[in-house]
Amino acid sequence: MKVTILRENEIRECVGMNKEALDAVALGFTRLVEGKVSLPPIIRVDVEVNQGEVDIKTAYIEGLDLFAIKIASGFFGNPSIGLPYGSGMMVLMSAKTGFLEAVLLDNGYLTDLRTGIAGAIAAEHLAPEQITTAGVIGSGVQARYQIRGLRMVRDFQQLLVYGIEPDGVERYISEMSQELGVEVFETDSPEKVFRESQFVATTTPSRKPYARAEWLHSGMHITAMGADGEHKQELFADVFGKADRIVCDRKSQCFRLGELHHALKEGVLSEEREITEIGELTGGIKSGRQDDQEITICDLTGVGVQDTTIAVLTYQKAISGGLGTPFEV
Amino acid sequence: MKVTILRENEIRECVGMNKEALDAVALGFTRLVEGKVSLPPIIRVDVEVNQGEVDIKTAYIEGLDLFAIKIASGFFGNPSIGLPYGSGMMVLMSAKTGFLEAVLLDNGYLTDLRTGIAGAIAAEHLAPEQITTAGVIGSGVQARYQIRGLRMVRDFQQLLVYGIEPDGVERYISEMSQELGVEVFETDSPEKVFRESQFVATTTPSRKPYARAEWLHSGMHITAMGADGEHKQELFADVFGKADRIVCDRKSQCFRLGELHHALKEGVLSEEREITEIGELTGGIKSGRQDDQEITICDLTGVGVQDTTIAVLTYQKAISGGLGTPFEV
Repeated sequence: MKVTILRENEIRECVGMNKEALDAVALGFTRLVEGKVSLPPIIRVDVEVNQGEVDIKTAYIEGLDLFAIKIASGFFGNPSIGLPYGSGMMVLMSAKTGFLEAVLLDNGYLTDLRTGIAGAIAAEHLAPEQITTAGVIGSGVQARYQIRGLRMVRDFQQLLVYGIEPDGVERYISEMSQELGVEVFETDSPEKVFRESQFVATTTPSRKPYARAEWLHSGMHITAMGADGEHKQELFADVFGKADRIVCDRKSQCFRLGELHHALKEGVLSEEREITEIGELTGGIKSGRQDDQEITICDLTGVGVQDTTIAVLTYQKAISGGLGTPFEV
Repeated sequence: MKVTILRENEIRECVGMNKEALDAVALGFTRLVEGKVSLPPIIRVDVEVNQGEVDIKTAYIEGLDLFAIKIASGFFGNPSIGLPYGSGMMVLMSAKTGFLEAVLLDNGYLTDLRTGIAGAIAAEHLAPEQITTAGVIGSGVQARYQIRGLRMVRDFQQLLVYGIEPDGVERYISEMSQELGVEVFETDSPEKVFRESQFVATTTPSRKPYARAEWLHSGMHITAMGADGEHKQELFADVFGKADRIVCDRKSQCFRLGELHHALKEGVLSEEREITEIGELTGGIKSGRQDDQEITICDLTGVGVQDTTIAVLTYQKAISGGLGTPFEV
């Protein structure tokens, strides 16, 4: 029996924020709404004593010979000892035999990537065609990836960032202005980001909502990707009351773990309100933004199909490129 | 960052059916009933087109620096292409940082082992002191491990086996009579095994119950470990009506996935009936068998604490023995 082990640097050689990855992940979302996916609920392990949590996600997609099991961790105390907050790895199993095929030692890179790609897909279908100013709340990894995702599908002239860590914001401005070739400005409030941007990504692990309904304006899109647990929330529930179009990655999951969970609980949304899944957009079943006046919101919690599609793409490219270490077991 | 990769042969050098493994797993069960474990529900991925299923289990146990995530698969068509039915692997994560510490490429060995160890713990507390005849239904891997588990804690003079695969039974008799040094006899019915044995392990993936209440007799113990999904069942529900003492590995799990699930559903058991968890036995909170006349049953579905404890023991022994391949990532 042979298992292939891929290191992070090899994985980074294989996949990035590009059309190929976008198409792969989009197909996963399409298959999901077509009912061609076995998608068990997420496992979450809490390690309270160390303020840590580990999420396990998986999805089997009909027609693929492999499926991924993804482990992603976040430990609050890591930065204080010089480690990144999050880490993780994936394994690929054969859908024909259940045998282990590959171990992807990505240190969380593929999770970052596929989360950014989901943001790109959301922006492709929902962001206004013309964006002068884009905005982001938070200055961490996803504050980068969500903006990279936007950049794949829209041009914009400037970027506003609001974050609570001055050093983090400073680094963000320096790195992202260089990477994007646009000016990046810090704002002194999240309100300013919302009021002045046609696209806003909220990317914080906030446990208290901060984004207010009165900040919204016509012709804007919001991608809210921070909340992926019932205890997390960035948008006040009534923000959804102002949305013309609400999209999410997976309704059943967002109703439990995402922003939509709070909006439902507080009665701002009812089960009758039309909510679109991303897969309905990628599959051409429903349309995204209809005009440049709509207010649209996309709630992302992260779905196993993203992990399986990005891991399979990575592995295919690694094998065809001769990358990876074979391991006899 | 360094990850240690352990191969199956190295893992087999480190841990086996012995007291050390039993003590490790027993402590996991004890911690569970003490409320010192974060134990999320099992994930199951179904790959219906290939009659396959993959289970993912995990548990964080307070006081341990590492915890395991275990992936175990079973694909019905494997034997017809010369592969074992089941496979799997485990990973060990740091409970301090959430970083990957080790990958255990055990091909399912540790799952087999820790399941046998749970059987040994059940037998230690519940089997009659004097066993002339032990019995087993099934002739697969767990038909071996459950009897090895019994042998760790009780002597017996002969072993009866009933199985539906003639070749499998023949191999079982040949291998186990040599390994155990006792005579092993095939029976032509499961009834005979039950009626003539003081200890019976049921180890089949049966989806229809076959073991009847009228086969039970005083002074016997049954360990039922085949059913680990709502669709599996070995014992008719009314078997539990004849038990003086009912034990299981984890109530909430057995009520959903084990034999107890069917007994509750059919009203043979009510929520009021006293059911003991193994951890209450290992922790000294409750007693096992009280006399040589009792009929006792233990329902095992497999709990994440078994995986974490056996994986941590394996890793500790591998590191102290200089085993494993370090992998820079």
